Amino acid sequence: MVFKKITLIGTSPESFDAAADDAIDRAQDTLQNVLWIEVDELGVEVASVEDREYQAEVTVAFELEG
Amino acid sequence: MVFKKITLIGTSPESFDAAADDAIDRAQDTLQNVLWIEVDELGVEVASVEDREYQAEVTVAFELEG
Amino acid sequence: MVFKKITLIGTSPESFDAAADDAIDRAQDTLQNVLWIEVDELGVEVASVEDREYQAEVTVAFELEG
Amino acid sequence: MVFKKITLIGTSPESFDAAADDAIDRAQDTLQNVLWIEVDELGVEVASVEDREYQAEVTVAFELEG
Amino acid sequence: MVFKKITLIGTSPESFDAAADDAIDRAQDTLQNVLWIEVDELGVEVASVEDREYQAEVTVAFELEG
Amino acid sequence: MVFKKITLIGTSPESFDAAADDAIDRAQDTLQNVLWIEVDELGVEVASVEDREYQAEVTVAFELEG
Amino acid sequence: MVFKKITLIGTSPESFDAAADDAIDRAQDTLQNVLWIEVDELGVEVASVEDREYQAEVTVAFELEG
Amino acid sequence: MVFKKITLIGTSPESFDAAADDAIDRAQDTLQNVLWIEVDELGVEVASVEDREYQAEVTVAFELEG
Amino acid sequence: MVFKKITLIGTSPESFDAAADDAIDRAQDTLQNVLWIEVDELGVEVASVEDREYQAEVTVAFELEG
Amino acid sequence: MVFKKITLIGTSPESFDAAADDAIDRAQDTLQNVLWIEVDELGVEVASVEDREYQAEVTVAFELEG
Amino acid sequence: MVFKKITLIGTSPESFDAAADDAIDRAQDTLQNVLWIEVDELGVEVASVEDREYQAEVTVAFELEG
Amino acid sequence: MVFKKITLIGTSPESFDAAADDAIDRAQDTLQNVLWIEVDELGVEVASVEDREYQAEVTVAFELEG
Repeated sequence: MVFKKITLIGTSPESFDAAADDAIDRAQDTLQNVLWIEVDELGVEVASVEDREYQAEVTVAFELEG
Repeated sequence: MVFKKITLIGTSPESFDAAADDAIDRAQDTLQNVLWIEVDELGVEVASVEDREYQAEVTVAFELEG
Repeated sequence: MVFKKITLIGTSPESFDAAADDAIDRAQDTLQNVLWIEVDELGVEVASVEDREYQAEVTVAFELEG
Repeated sequence: MVFKKITLIGTSPESFDAAADDAIDRAQDTLQNVLWIEVDELGVEVASVEDREYQAEVTVAFELEG
Repeated sequence: MVFKKITLIGTSPESFDAAADDAIDRAQDTLQNVLWIEVDELGVEVASVEDREYQAEVTVAFELEG
Repeated sequence: MVFKKITLIGTSPESFDAAADDAIDRAQDTLQNVLWIEVDELGVEVASVEDREYQAEVTVAFELEG
Repeated sequence: MVFKKITLIGTSPESFDAAADDAIDRAQDTLQNVLWIEVDELGVEVASVEDREYQAEVTVAFELEG
Repeated sequence: MVFKKITLIGTSPESFDAAADDAIDRAQDTLQNVLWIEVDELGVEVASVEDREYQAEVTVAFELEG
Repeated sequence: MVFKKITLIGTSPESFDAAADDAIDRAQDTLQNVLWIEVDELGVEVASVEDREYQAEVTVAFELEG
Repeated sequence: MVFKKITLIGTSPESFDAAADDAIDRAQDTLQNVLWIEVDELGVEVASVEDREYQAEVTVAFELEG
Repeated sequence: MVFKKITLIGTSPESFDAAADDAIDRAQDTLQNVLWIEVDELGVEVASVEDREYQAEVTVAFELEG
Repeated sequence: MVFKKITLIGTSPESFDAAADDAIDRAQDTLQNVLWIEVDELGVEVASVEDREYQAEVTVAFELEG
């Protein structure tokens, strides 16, 4: 059994929780066996967006198919 | 005056804030003088739970009784 | 074009998101060109406040005027 | 010449060495030019397995084809 | 559900794997629900022992009873 | 032979050395076999004390009885 | 909007800047929306090359297509 | 004698060296006694600029006037 | 309530404690509400001073006035 | 009593334990009073060797003679 | 002009300052051009000494002769 | 086969690349089998030199002769 880890950054206009969920949602769209995620960094983009954009960089762990 | 630090992981089906609160609640159930907590890591368990479980690993600082 | 970074700690009785917003609000009161913030640390003060005070230490990046 | 790095977690019921080998074996199944691996973290899963499962999170470096 | 983490250093005259097992064995002697361990540091004591003593500092995570 | 590590914060109105000693004294009051301590962080509390309070967060290693 | 991060190592016989450019060039050959890169590590390979090979390990961030 | 440290990000369309120089130039425009700088992070902005913008985040140390 | 953090390096010909005090003294000369300091690094300058100069790099936290 | 630390990388075709032993053996060939070693990094070389070469980078502490 | 760095651990029965001085004294006994030292770690040995032994692990920087 | 690592700081009035080369040149003057170097830190000395002195602290890995 081998796992793989990839790094995604989810975004949300509302909260850090929603930004993390955004990344998990995307991971589950394309990966079958998402096991857990770890939050690497949180931030807020201010300049290039209308209001504020909450960002959560997460590491997604999933099981590689045999 | 000497403080001690212990490490707990709180969990919640809803948010990182609630997961941190979960750990503080538990600390206050058994410890008299909880002073502050520091968040060490945030994560989300996906595989072994029904939906998603937000987790907050926190360090709890409390005062040792003389 | 040169950017500068400063470190603020925002506080909120409600959530980590609100604590980060508190720091960004304050930065935008006195600085013209706030670009983004990075969350350095999250914590909760328990002993010296009535209930719980969520704290977010953030690094604020802004553009220096020419 | 450009290299790429990916992160895998190998597992073994026997030892950390075997867990690292497990990850390298898997990498070599799908990648042509594996150059070296770095061990990022070692751990042991206890609760969700029959006995103990040694785990080695490794970064695998390989050469991208021109 | 709240987890707690403690830090132990296991020792063995033979290998790092055995040193980690030594710490897990001890944790399971006194704790009911050991979930997983993370290896924090590996080392070898040379001066104060007869031959060589392999050491594994590990963090043990276990579930607190309700 | 298994060691355990705990984290204490000693305090002193005089110096960092005295703050570290404060933590070691406390550890030796309740633990039989204190082996060594590592200094994790040094700080000075200013606001909530009369003058200045030197603080030393230390990790205390001790031998678990068989 | 979700971003992904991957890790590449670019190489150059001339400078660290050229090594970083080498990795960005390669990323842009295969990815549409490269946003920024972060330098993780710099090094120089001496033994297995004719003269000196400057290396830049970089993290490349790009936007995932909806 | 007391020193102060601030964090600046210099930018350049050409190289990391020029980006660091950009930050030092700016520091010396407004500060009398710049002593040394430390490079904290190097990066390259790709998306929001015409070509590539090399960035050097540096800590600038200077002497406070008595 | 928002706090700000700045970084100072205090110096002393005598000890690390006195070097930290030097930085706190300076901070309190110009800032009203110094709350606490954290020691980031300790060092000793040897070459450019007559004897030895103990240095303490500290982060100073203070409350911003409303 | 003053100790010195040096950094060695031991290698073995068989295991991480043997790679660490390789470095300790070499240290003891040339140094009288080796006290302990700390493992800094583990890795496996794949490309430039026949099979796999386990590597252990270790810090060796020894006592300087008076 | 090239500098070299080595790592020493000084010891003292009295204080961290004296332990750092112990390492600097030793460095200056055998090296001509000691420039500065950085404190890497502080600790206290308890078990194998009569009372307490303060230890300061320091990195010593010195100029290599042309 | 055992490797050793030492730490040097190269300097140059021109660039970080030249500062790293300076350290490698010096290493190759006295060591036979330099294998690779890793850049640990980059900085610029301003106060004690005429213009600016770029500095590269590097770890040099070389093979110990049997």
